[in-house]
Amino acid sequence: MATMKALAYLGKGEIGVVERPKPTIQFPTDAVVKLLKTTICGTDLHIMKGDVPTVPEGRILGHEGIGTIESVGSSVASFAPGDLVVISCITACGTCNFCRRGITSHCTSGGWVLGNTVDGTQAEYVRVQFANTSLYHAPKGVDLNALVMTSDILPTSLECGVLNGRVQPGSSVAVIGAGPVGLAALMTAQLYSPRLSIAIDVDGNRLEAARKHGATHTVRSGPNAVKEVMDITGGLGVDSAIEAVGIPATFELCQDLVGVGGTIANVGVHGSKVDLHLEKLWDRNVAITTRLVDAVTTPTLLQMLESGRLDATPLTTHHFRFSEIMESYATFKAAAENKALKVIIDFL
Amino acid sequence: MATMKALAYLGKGEIGVVERPKPTIQFPTDAVVKLLKTTICGTDLHIMKGDVPTVPEGRILGHEGIGTIESVGSSVASFAPGDLVVISCITACGTCNFCRRGITSHCTSGGWVLGNTVDGTQAEYVRVQFANTSLYHAPKGVDLNALVMTSDILPTSLECGVLNGRVQPGSSVAVIGAGPVGLAALMTAQLYSPRLSIAIDVDGNRLEAARKHGATHTVRSGPNAVKEVMDITGGLGVDSAIEAVGIPATFELCQDLVGVGGTIANVGVHGSKVDLHLEKLWDRNVAITTRLVDAVTTPTLLQMLESGRLDATPLTTHHFRFSEIMESYATFKAAAENKALKVIIDFL
Amino acid sequence: MATMKALAYLGKGEIGVVERPKPTIQFPTDAVVKLLKTTICGTDLHIMKGDVPTVPEGRILGHEGIGTIESVGSSVASFAPGDLVVISCITACGTCNFCRRGITSHCTSGGWVLGNTVDGTQAEYVRVQFANTSLYHAPKGVDLNALVMTSDILPTSLECGVLNGRVQPGSSVAVIGAGPVGLAALMTAQLYSPRLSIAIDVDGNRLEAARKHGATHTVRSGPNAVKEVMDITGGLGVDSAIEAVGIPATFELCQDLVGVGGTIANVGVHGSKVDLHLEKLWDRNVAITTRLVDAVTTPTLLQMLESGRLDATPLTTHHFRFSEIMESYATFKAAAENKALKVIIDFL
Amino acid sequence: MATMKALAYLGKGEIGVVERPKPTIQFPTDAVVKLLKTTICGTDLHIMKGDVPTVPEGRILGHEGIGTIESVGSSVASFAPGDLVVISCITACGTCNFCRRGITSHCTSGGWVLGNTVDGTQAEYVRVQFANTSLYHAPKGVDLNALVMTSDILPTSLECGVLNGRVQPGSSVAVIGAGPVGLAALMTAQLYSPRLSIAIDVDGNRLEAARKHGATHTVRSGPNAVKEVMDITGGLGVDSAIEAVGIPATFELCQDLVGVGGTIANVGVHGSKVDLHLEKLWDRNVAITTRLVDAVTTPTLLQMLESGRLDATPLTTHHFRFSEIMESYATFKAAAENKALKVIIDFL
Repeated sequence: MATMKALAYLGKGEIGVVERPKPTIQFPTDAVVKLLKTTICGTDLHIMKGDVPTVPEGRILGHEGIGTIESVGSSVASFAPGDLVVISCITACGTCNFCRRGITSHCTSGGWVLGNTVDGTQAEYVRVQFANTSLYHAPKGVDLNALVMTSDILPTSLECGVLNGRVQPGSSVAVIGAGPVGLAALMTAQLYSPRLSIAIDVDGNRLEAARKHGATHTVRSGPNAVKEVMDITGGLGVDSAIEAVGIPATFELCQDLVGVGGTIANVGVHGSKVDLHLEKLWDRNVAITTRLVDAVTTPTLLQMLESGRLDATPLTTHHFRFSEIMESYATFKAAAENKALKVIIDFL
Repeated sequence: MATMKALAYLGKGEIGVVERPKPTIQFPTDAVVKLLKTTICGTDLHIMKGDVPTVPEGRILGHEGIGTIESVGSSVASFAPGDLVVISCITACGTCNFCRRGITSHCTSGGWVLGNTVDGTQAEYVRVQFANTSLYHAPKGVDLNALVMTSDILPTSLECGVLNGRVQPGSSVAVIGAGPVGLAALMTAQLYSPRLSIAIDVDGNRLEAARKHGATHTVRSGPNAVKEVMDITGGLGVDSAIEAVGIPATFELCQDLVGVGGTIANVGVHGSKVDLHLEKLWDRNVAITTRLVDAVTTPTLLQMLESGRLDATPLTTHHFRFSEIMESYATFKAAAENKALKVIIDFL
Repeated sequence: MATMKALAYLGKGEIGVVERPKPTIQFPTDAVVKLLKTTICGTDLHIMKGDVPTVPEGRILGHEGIGTIESVGSSVASFAPGDLVVISCITACGTCNFCRRGITSHCTSGGWVLGNTVDGTQAEYVRVQFANTSLYHAPKGVDLNALVMTSDILPTSLECGVLNGRVQPGSSVAVIGAGPVGLAALMTAQLYSPRLSIAIDVDGNRLEAARKHGATHTVRSGPNAVKEVMDITGGLGVDSAIEAVGIPATFELCQDLVGVGGTIANVGVHGSKVDLHLEKLWDRNVAITTRLVDAVTTPTLLQMLESGRLDATPLTTHHFRFSEIMESYATFKAAAENKALKVIIDFL
Repeated sequence: MATMKALAYLGKGEIGVVERPKPTIQFPTDAVVKLLKTTICGTDLHIMKGDVPTVPEGRILGHEGIGTIESVGSSVASFAPGDLVVISCITACGTCNFCRRGITSHCTSGGWVLGNTVDGTQAEYVRVQFANTSLYHAPKGVDLNALVMTSDILPTSLECGVLNGRVQPGSSVAVIGAGPVGLAALMTAQLYSPRLSIAIDVDGNRLEAARKHGATHTVRSGPNAVKEVMDITGGLGVDSAIEAVGIPATFELCQDLVGVGGTIANVGVHGSKVDLHLEKLWDRNVAITTRLVDAVTTPTLLQMLESGRLDATPLTTHHFRFSEIMESYATFKAAAENKALKVIIDFL
């Protein structure tokens, strides 16, 4: 039986490279993809810590990546062996009521399953279910590292942050948290030409990076942050506050920053409840939104990369071979000190 | 100097009928209205308790009512003495950036001011600022009690509850709280033909009333409420959860009831913070909205009353003369035991 | 080889019942359905006349119907033999860019193909491609004749007429043409509670029927029609003009009836160009829309029939056995004189 | 009596500088503005030719300009003498039902009246009605010539072209006509980051200018135009076709270029009816929109100029003193040969 190498979750706090059977087609709608590149998501670090109860020991991690089609099931009409494809972090059956409504993240037989409830992409091969609606043809001529960004971080920041946040020409946006997802939100927010793009973070390096991703203003987190944002916005607060951290303090900050008629778009993964100050917000005409990415913007994002309308290369900072994947985790785990955004892992 | 009688806030816990100078035109945009009918809002009870710090002692209460134009300022082109008008609870200058965006509730020189920061409508006469954009011509042939409902409760329930809640044909709605505002939300929700309209309350009488206002299902608040709603919705939860109470427990209930992709539309006035369970909701693609009524639907509501498309008469249950206004407050304060919805106070 | 009976197009002006091989599964995504009921569409009459060049001689007609699953391909996970299903007039692959955008009518490997480019539903059996996304489970307890209306006429009138026409609570709607599709548009328009619903037709019987489908006013086509509509709308014209005939004169009438800021929603199938009076409309802030039904509202319509929110039974007027299908065509062809709306053809 | 100089329409084909009484406040809502700069619109040329029947002989022309407040009526609270203001081409009462719905272009006591039914801005002074809602404070630090573009051409191109055309990130846009309005549409379309921006014109100079205003592709009008656009769009046609000419041929071209699900946004002023090919478009899911500018985006445009998000200076090409206004008309009339876009007329 053919085997392959993969990075697996080995129990609370532990991951490691393991040898596994190479996956094969199990359903007519499956495809097997040979990975070219993968990357690590903040969620992978959560899994590693043991914080994600749906992930069993032994699970191959990873929900992002590009590769070539190795084999397809009998009803996979859209792809053929050899095709270069992007693997979406969301597996969508395309048939259930959620998929039909565009809420593919809650597909009743898919959703976020890769590297979670089924084996993922940090492996030489991966089986992708419902390939017709879960893989995308890679457009020609796009930098392959940039392409990896369309698996998750670009549609996540655009859908959960920018679209949910209703960023509009001339509006004001604050992005709280200038890590990879926050920077991607800043970057994709520019597609709607906001007037003010304010990045907020504790880390000076990240704020510097934010300038390169579209921030017109940067604000250091802390006691003066609210006042600074109010000064920038003429006392009105922001139209869109995009939460890209996932802790109570930053969500609370969003409530202080959002203006009348504005939106708090939550992107962060939260592990505990937060205080919602309805006693202050009940009459402020605000909206608060949550979302798991649906990848409905992926085709458009791919076209924009192809045409050069969007340049995602600044989101990748470090490169490793798959044999160095343990180092890549170490680098990404200490992202701030390494000035790391997304790390790329190459299979050669 | 001409005087008039009015109901005033006299300090924490106290209200009473007082004699006051009859108001006169102060600005070219003012109108003075002679009241025909007014009513009491839950907010008036909050003020009476001393809970609304913007209301000083001596303030004439009330922000709802209909009457006839007594006099107008030089730039009030839309109204003439003798015209029968509805007084909107929202005073809108029509000029500031908020008014232009349709967020008249945050008009920089108006908003909710009547019976709050300026004298209100529980009086024989009231001065209404920015009359051109704060009064409405009463359509002919509409029951005058029903007409009073367009001052506040109908646009509030429609805008903050139904429109913010994105009620759609075939969707499922739960209204939490079957008091006057909740019932008005049920009633106006029917304009969008939801499939399931679930009323939730602690009070059996109110649930019975809810049946007459459009509820297809009623659920008693309590430990089984969530399970009952899940049974009604096939385990999916509701598309729209309309909070019409204003306490942490009911807002929390909304979080348990809202389905993936759904909306919690807050209508209740909250006096304290609430718990928001982002650890459960972050990936559920939900929206939470707040709003103070903008009265942008008032012209449409008036047309619907005129054409018979909407019947607001069931919202009024008790009638008093202005000389009995203290009894009317007593009745409204014990609304549940009196089976009272809106009480009408007539000036004769 | 098993055979079946079917109604086929036999060349310009001619149709007839023929004997054909019973269809079988050809692709893993196929299903074969045994018909219980079908119906005739105005388009079938166009085909019969030879007006639809995509339809070859010998084609089995029909794109509407309900039936039971006879057999399914290997990737049809949503249906099993014996299931009672609705056949959508639109075949959707669920995978192409149009399907993902909800424009399934332009599915690159489907769309309106049944009874057009592939054999249709006026037959004892039909093969339906992409069954997972082109068939719908029949909800329990719904009148089977009403159910047939969800194949085409209900989603067509709702999507192309009501949704495209942006019918809203309190708005004014004119439906031009009170044939089956126009009446279905009137009926589904009521889901949005318009204030004025004006039916316009040349035929008095149809106008009488319109009253039963939601019309608040009826207007006889002719020289006074515009004036009558202006009188009804206070001189403003209508917010939504739904064209449900498909000839230049009725489209021109829509241009005379639509008010500032309104919409002309075209539902009719047009065979020739029309005059568009941009010299009158260029500054009137109107929209004109066209659409082939996408069946995106079918799941909701089925739920509304199930819950009793919508009653489609008045749309069916005549009943035939499949052995009488030639009479059913004759009846439907002379619909006005027979007071016929949709005719139901039963397979027993 | 104080007099002033002004440019007036003197009958079919004739305009000239005349001496007129300086306007004064007539209503409490009026303001008188002393002009600093004005410009000429294509509509002024139509008027000059005698094509606009609402304009009587003797009318002072012009509906664009900036200036300082000379005097205000008693209810003009938003402006004081000396304030630098932009004069909107649309006069809005802010009170009527159209104004409240954001359709200020059809304000029942305003709309496009300046230089049409009341005296306009090509004069040393102009009386502006409903000043609170028809004038805008000039933001500090913006180039004054660029500011003149916010009177008409920028909101017109953004509202009638880009917003009506539903331009979106990653979409494809064709602008037919690369005159000033078409170029402004190209420029403001970029606020939404379309992937493809195709300019179409007969004139090579204008196509060259289009490149500087955001065009990614240019196409010469003529027999090959449709094929070229199809090649650029992979055979799909464009998502948004913006008609910025106003003749039947260009509107017809739009019908050939628009893709399934796309929009034709008409900006051009049409003098005659056009052919609408419903026999080809009825099933293409397209929308066609018309609109007279409502100036609802003017506040946002002013903020974007102030922040540098938008640079309108390239739209102005020629400068004249008011004493040279006849030459400025001559230059603008022969715009193509003079490579003229907007001409600025200064009052000193």
